[in-house]
Amino acid sequence: MDLKLDALIRSALEEDIGTGDITTLSTIPAEKQITGRFLAKESGVLCGIDVCRRVFALIDPEIVFEKFFEDGSTIQKGDVIATVSGNAQNILTGERVSLNLLQRMSGIATRTRECVEKVAGTNARIADTRKTTPGLRVLEKYAVKCGGGSNHRFNLADGVLIKDNHIEAAGGIRAAVEMARQNIPHTLKIEVEVETFEQLREALEAKADIIMLDNMSNEEMAEAVQIVNGAALTEASGNMGEKDLREVAKTGVDIISIGALTHTVKAMDISLKFKF
Amino acid sequence: MDLKLDALIRSALEEDIGTGDITTLSTIPAEKQITGRFLAKESGVLCGIDVCRRVFALIDPEIVFEKFFEDGSTIQKGDVIATVSGNAQNILTGERVSLNLLQRMSGIATRTRECVEKVAGTNARIADTRKTTPGLRVLEKYAVKCGGGSNHRFNLADGVLIKDNHIEAAGGIRAAVEMARQNIPHTLKIEVEVETFEQLREALEAKADIIMLDNMSNEEMAEAVQIVNGAALTEASGNMGEKDLREVAKTGVDIISIGALTHTVKAMDISLKFKF
Amino acid sequence: MDLKLDALIRSALEEDIGTGDITTLSTIPAEKQITGRFLAKESGVLCGIDVCRRVFALIDPEIVFEKFFEDGSTIQKGDVIATVSGNAQNILTGERVSLNLLQRMSGIATRTRECVEKVAGTNARIADTRKTTPGLRVLEKYAVKCGGGSNHRFNLADGVLIKDNHIEAAGGIRAAVEMARQNIPHTLKIEVEVETFEQLREALEAKADIIMLDNMSNEEMAEAVQIVNGAALTEASGNMGEKDLREVAKTGVDIISIGALTHTVKAMDISLKFKF
Amino acid sequence: MDLKLDALIRSALEEDIGTGDITTLSTIPAEKQITGRFLAKESGVLCGIDVCRRVFALIDPEIVFEKFFEDGSTIQKGDVIATVSGNAQNILTGERVSLNLLQRMSGIATRTRECVEKVAGTNARIADTRKTTPGLRVLEKYAVKCGGGSNHRFNLADGVLIKDNHIEAAGGIRAAVEMARQNIPHTLKIEVEVETFEQLREALEAKADIIMLDNMSNEEMAEAVQIVNGAALTEASGNMGEKDLREVAKTGVDIISIGALTHTVKAMDISLKFKF
Amino acid sequence: MDLKLDALIRSALEEDIGTGDITTLSTIPAEKQITGRFLAKESGVLCGIDVCRRVFALIDPEIVFEKFFEDGSTIQKGDVIATVSGNAQNILTGERVSLNLLQRMSGIATRTRECVEKVAGTNARIADTRKTTPGLRVLEKYAVKCGGGSNHRFNLADGVLIKDNHIEAAGGIRAAVEMARQNIPHTLKIEVEVETFEQLREALEAKADIIMLDNMSNEEMAEAVQIVNGAALTEASGNMGEKDLREVAKTGVDIISIGALTHTVKAMDISLKFKF
Amino acid sequence: MDLKLDALIRSALEEDIGTGDITTLSTIPAEKQITGRFLAKESGVLCGIDVCRRVFALIDPEIVFEKFFEDGSTIQKGDVIATVSGNAQNILTGERVSLNLLQRMSGIATRTRECVEKVAGTNARIADTRKTTPGLRVLEKYAVKCGGGSNHRFNLADGVLIKDNHIEAAGGIRAAVEMARQNIPHTLKIEVEVETFEQLREALEAKADIIMLDNMSNEEMAEAVQIVNGAALTEASGNMGEKDLREVAKTGVDIISIGALTHTVKAMDISLKFKF
Repeated sequence: MDLKLDALIRSALEEDIGTGDITTLSTIPAEKQITGRFLAKESGVLCGIDVCRRVFALIDPEIVFEKFFEDGSTIQKGDVIATVSGNAQNILTGERVSLNLLQRMSGIATRTRECVEKVAGTNARIADTRKTTPGLRVLEKYAVKCGGGSNHRFNLADGVLIKDNHIEAAGGIRAAVEMARQNIPHTLKIEVEVETFEQLREALEAKADIIMLDNMSNEEMAEAVQIVNGAALTEASGNMGEKDLREVAKTGVDIISIGALTHTVKAMDISLKFKF
Repeated sequence: MDLKLDALIRSALEEDIGTGDITTLSTIPAEKQITGRFLAKESGVLCGIDVCRRVFALIDPEIVFEKFFEDGSTIQKGDVIATVSGNAQNILTGERVSLNLLQRMSGIATRTRECVEKVAGTNARIADTRKTTPGLRVLEKYAVKCGGGSNHRFNLADGVLIKDNHIEAAGGIRAAVEMARQNIPHTLKIEVEVETFEQLREALEAKADIIMLDNMSNEEMAEAVQIVNGAALTEASGNMGEKDLREVAKTGVDIISIGALTHTVKAMDISLKFKF
Repeated sequence: MDLKLDALIRSALEEDIGTGDITTLSTIPAEKQITGRFLAKESGVLCGIDVCRRVFALIDPEIVFEKFFEDGSTIQKGDVIATVSGNAQNILTGERVSLNLLQRMSGIATRTRECVEKVAGTNARIADTRKTTPGLRVLEKYAVKCGGGSNHRFNLADGVLIKDNHIEAAGGIRAAVEMARQNIPHTLKIEVEVETFEQLREALEAKADIIMLDNMSNEEMAEAVQIVNGAALTEASGNMGEKDLREVAKTGVDIISIGALTHTVKAMDISLKFKF
Repeated sequence: MDLKLDALIRSALEEDIGTGDITTLSTIPAEKQITGRFLAKESGVLCGIDVCRRVFALIDPEIVFEKFFEDGSTIQKGDVIATVSGNAQNILTGERVSLNLLQRMSGIATRTRECVEKVAGTNARIADTRKTTPGLRVLEKYAVKCGGGSNHRFNLADGVLIKDNHIEAAGGIRAAVEMARQNIPHTLKIEVEVETFEQLREALEAKADIIMLDNMSNEEMAEAVQIVNGAALTEASGNMGEKDLREVAKTGVDIISIGALTHTVKAMDISLKFKF
Repeated sequence: MDLKLDALIRSALEEDIGTGDITTLSTIPAEKQITGRFLAKESGVLCGIDVCRRVFALIDPEIVFEKFFEDGSTIQKGDVIATVSGNAQNILTGERVSLNLLQRMSGIATRTRECVEKVAGTNARIADTRKTTPGLRVLEKYAVKCGGGSNHRFNLADGVLIKDNHIEAAGGIRAAVEMARQNIPHTLKIEVEVETFEQLREALEAKADIIMLDNMSNEEMAEAVQIVNGAALTEASGNMGEKDLREVAKTGVDIISIGALTHTVKAMDISLKFKF
Repeated sequence: MDLKLDALIRSALEEDIGTGDITTLSTIPAEKQITGRFLAKESGVLCGIDVCRRVFALIDPEIVFEKFFEDGSTIQKGDVIATVSGNAQNILTGERVSLNLLQRMSGIATRTRECVEKVAGTNARIADTRKTTPGLRVLEKYAVKCGGGSNHRFNLADGVLIKDNHIEAAGGIRAAVEMARQNIPHTLKIEVEVETFEQLREALEAKADIIMLDNMSNEEMAEAVQIVNGAALTEASGNMGEKDLREVAKTGVDIISIGALTHTVKAMDISLKFKF
């Protein structure tokens, strides 16, 4: 993760700094020292604190960053999450980028945790999708895990998901599954998206490893789970961000995948307060 | 914009495709043609349609993309926004990235439009901040403009914003403004963040071009605007995403800057439907 | 694949050209036209012809490249594989890079085909490993497929392979499998490497999806396959490049993975002959 | 070399790791320490040990890497080449990439050494060509030197090699040599490829610095060397990988260039064995 | 600045080193230590000494670099500017790139200082333009500041400069200014280029913040300054590199912008002398 | 050259455009067409016209660029060098970058031509050095050739130049030359820098291919040329930019290398004039 992370941070810093932070360079002496505290202004699940640390380390290895919570911790309004001390110009340079990442990642972790808690005690796992922000997928999927969720495939290469287009082009579910099985690494499972019980049965006959139940009612999903009867994993999908997740989970599905975990994000309110 | 945009799209495609879309490559014949329609599943302000087009153009220059609305248009649930036709494998390759960008940008434009409409008829402009998604700032600020808002500075180099840290380090507002004026390009204005009327007066004496009124009540802002009396632009700031914007605008401020326009995003619901 | 491929080709061209092909620039007039024929100087399985075409397209879109065989075709000594026509300076610029790629990829495909033919009629698939040339993995694994082989995981993210280190650190096979299952996307299978029958039974109890039989004799593998009895896929591994593959296949294993397919490569002899 | 090397290693690591080593991250505790030994499983010439060290240094500067042999050393089956100690997750992350580079480079050095030994005591140097793996040329040519060979030009800019195409386009060897001499830096020699004695004489008259004798029999080469009589360097070329090199060397040529040194590679068998 | 600077230096080193400094690698033992002194061979204003230090730090962090003057200092012929000590191969590797940067930046600073001294005691600031060397703008504008000059806009995004084309397309100065004001961040001033007094008055009526007086005679500029009368900044422009700057300054303009500061550069003569 | 050139141009455009040309975007309608003429405002040697064309082609392939002179042509004040027609926004976007490159390259070609003319009729070639602008070496060396000069080595890998440091470290000229000869590609010549006749004789005995006569008087150089007597090329070096080149040439040296050709540059005055 580190290799790509550094490039992402450098690129974010370039975007935010442009040709130089002219306000800071004009007004703050080069040798000035400063200490800042990352302060939670609302409660939630922390995520991104090590990314935050890395932002400052890349700018200036001599900046001291001390964290008081780990990613995945629940923090309360008023908690001091971390402190950052060192050269004032360099710390101010990293302020916005570190906050932009920390707030977003914590926002995703917090929302995921809420979803996970709704299905607590059931069989269902809460999973993400590929509806992530371009460029930030690894971080956003990490945030979902910090919130207690699990990850769906990271990209089109590390999972097979056969949808209506593939089925139609291949000439049916059975043919599509078979074609996939011939072509993919044997380390990958095959998932098939179904909208009807007939498709469901075809997928089972084709020995799909995972069945995605797309836009079904809870009643339909419950029946589908019974039909599957453990022969494959079942995944509930389709605007799950607006559903009563507990009711969905009660249908017995193994996975509930929710695009809104990452496509609709509320930044967690965290600020960086300085003292000289 | 194009230069960076292409790099961003390529990088998003690499992130989404990984070592190859194994499902599509396994099941869809290489010569298969397809047509897809971008369909609005809720109403809002469209943004990103040319970015969308560029996604497909970079994958395969022979894909035909026809748009029916321009960025900034209000679209209604059920509208067909655009069609995309051509090689099925290539179009499916670009589906997720194009939607991820289009939905996010349209979500930002839609929220901005709502804010702009709330202050219609007043003097106030709705502006964004630097609280944008790392890597997407140019696109997100473009979305704010499509929604009718205006842009604050793009980065730390194209605007001076003197905050408490700078003031303290410089030894007062007057000193900070003077130091900035000596060092910056003469093409840039100088903005000072103030929290009290005393600071406000100092900033005016120092001939600041813009005064940011930070976390003031509406009453205080109204009084501040009267004190300034046209000698500088005034900008309301501080959790404006949660305020009654019309009431803020009535204080007479010139700009209301809202971090939530870009840090708290609800993707607009748009889908891509195919037929063979 | 195209996105990364272009970058790889550009980088290969930069490596080969340096600051300019001084011989060609000095001696060949800028407007000179030329035609070259890619000629097989030995028989084998062709692979990389579209990569070859792309090399020339990136240098000069007006170069005309006509291929007479597709990747995966068996070609005979003396066959003309393709012709390339256009500006002489530009074609000579791409000569070495196109041949270096084509010869290597065809060499891999040819060796793979030999292995596949040895196990023809058995249940076994010939698979590659991660022992590929740094920077060329996607192309080399593509060559394996062109030779009739199948791909093992592409990287450490799209497959789980639990080895002795993981087992020891996790505290046993069962624990390791369970820890993996909790953490990975549900779209991935879990493979466990075993060296003894005791480990094999533990892996089966832990419901591993794939069992790698590491450095076992053919007799041991045959017994292992019987123990597994279809409850998991079985994979033969360990210096398979030096084994009698037909004998290995007869043990009933599902996959035979061979590092030598890509770590020990004999370039296929192909040349580019010009006429003015 | 370091500048490009780091980029090459980072890119190889990204290729191998993808979005993360999910097996290791799932099963091995973050603080676990480990020690590994690079073990020679066959004899040969070591090459790439400092590249290997750099792989681990880039992943984690705290990893301790101790080498017991230098590049160019002859190592015996069973030798411990180096040890690597530190964080287990980080060391496992670099395992495959470090081995892929070390095995390939040592394979090339070993084969080169065999060729060099065959011509020991003669005047001939063994040289490489541009038939290298795209992206790895500097490392492969370094391996040739570690094996006792010498390098031909690195790219099309740092050597002039006039071949049949150039001769035909320029209107003869004399014209081609003269055109080159006018255009190139005066720091470079001019080499001409000849297939007949007539061409050889023309090249000598044109004062070529080096004569490449292309696909000549040993008898022809011996005669050519006599004709040249020290007025230029002579280089034997054309499928030299399949020739009796000692017989070629006895013709008196100065250089024998062998494409197979780098286009047909057998990885040396080296493994990394761990203990906790 | 650091982020981009490192990339620039690395790229300059790659350009200068190519596939390796074969002279140094051949003749200087790997462990050899060396000390070099940067020596001023003419007097001038130093600029780039920290860039110089960074060149060596990127090549080898163990090289010790000690500077005796800061950027912006006036140095005399014969002054030792800095010393560099450490591994001989590594220091020689950085010699040319460090000098190329240091000499150029000092050359720019020196010329700027001469211009600044010519207008000493007047109201006028000496400013640069966008006529900089592609790739080096930030460094060259920094050199202008080290010489006592000030910076005009860094790029087309951080300043508005309305020229004849914009005016004609927009339908007049007033329209152009108004269109700009509606579209740009409120943090930026608006500058208008005028060639006549009529245009000047239009620009003032449109409330332009800065007026560029293009190719006017000194007399015209003096009259223009009176007309403006403090309502906007005034900037003298047009081959200022060939004008008597003191006479220009006496017209009362606020800024004199000079393309020649960066487009016509005389490297300052600085050498690096070694002793073993 | 094209591969690197595109990257250089893109990077220069990014540097110049930043987040967008706000003036043009605000004031010029998106569909506006424009024609511009590149106009020589002084006489000189044109260089960079195809680079110029490429700038516009990369921005917008539909822009039509017509050139009336080739690189290397002598142009007179008032000549129209080329025209560029197409979308106004896109053409204005490329204006500054195209001019910055064209003016600099033409400035170098012009100065080189002046030097070449001074030595017309003598044996001496005018050559450049590595004292080029970081990032622009290939373009600047191309400009030297357009002016009639010739190129010295492009980087530290494509030429051997043994200087005092190398000699001292190697233990004498003979040793240094021998060490180089053992290590370098046989395609490269060996150059030795000498300051005394004793060194000169050592270099000749060591069979150096080229002798650099460093900081010698014309008389000394004439004597040196006689001593060498055709056994090696001779190169005059050392502040040649300030010497009477004709007198230097009369000494009989083969090459006069001049750092000032590229380290001290006067941009040629060329402007781009538009009409709508």
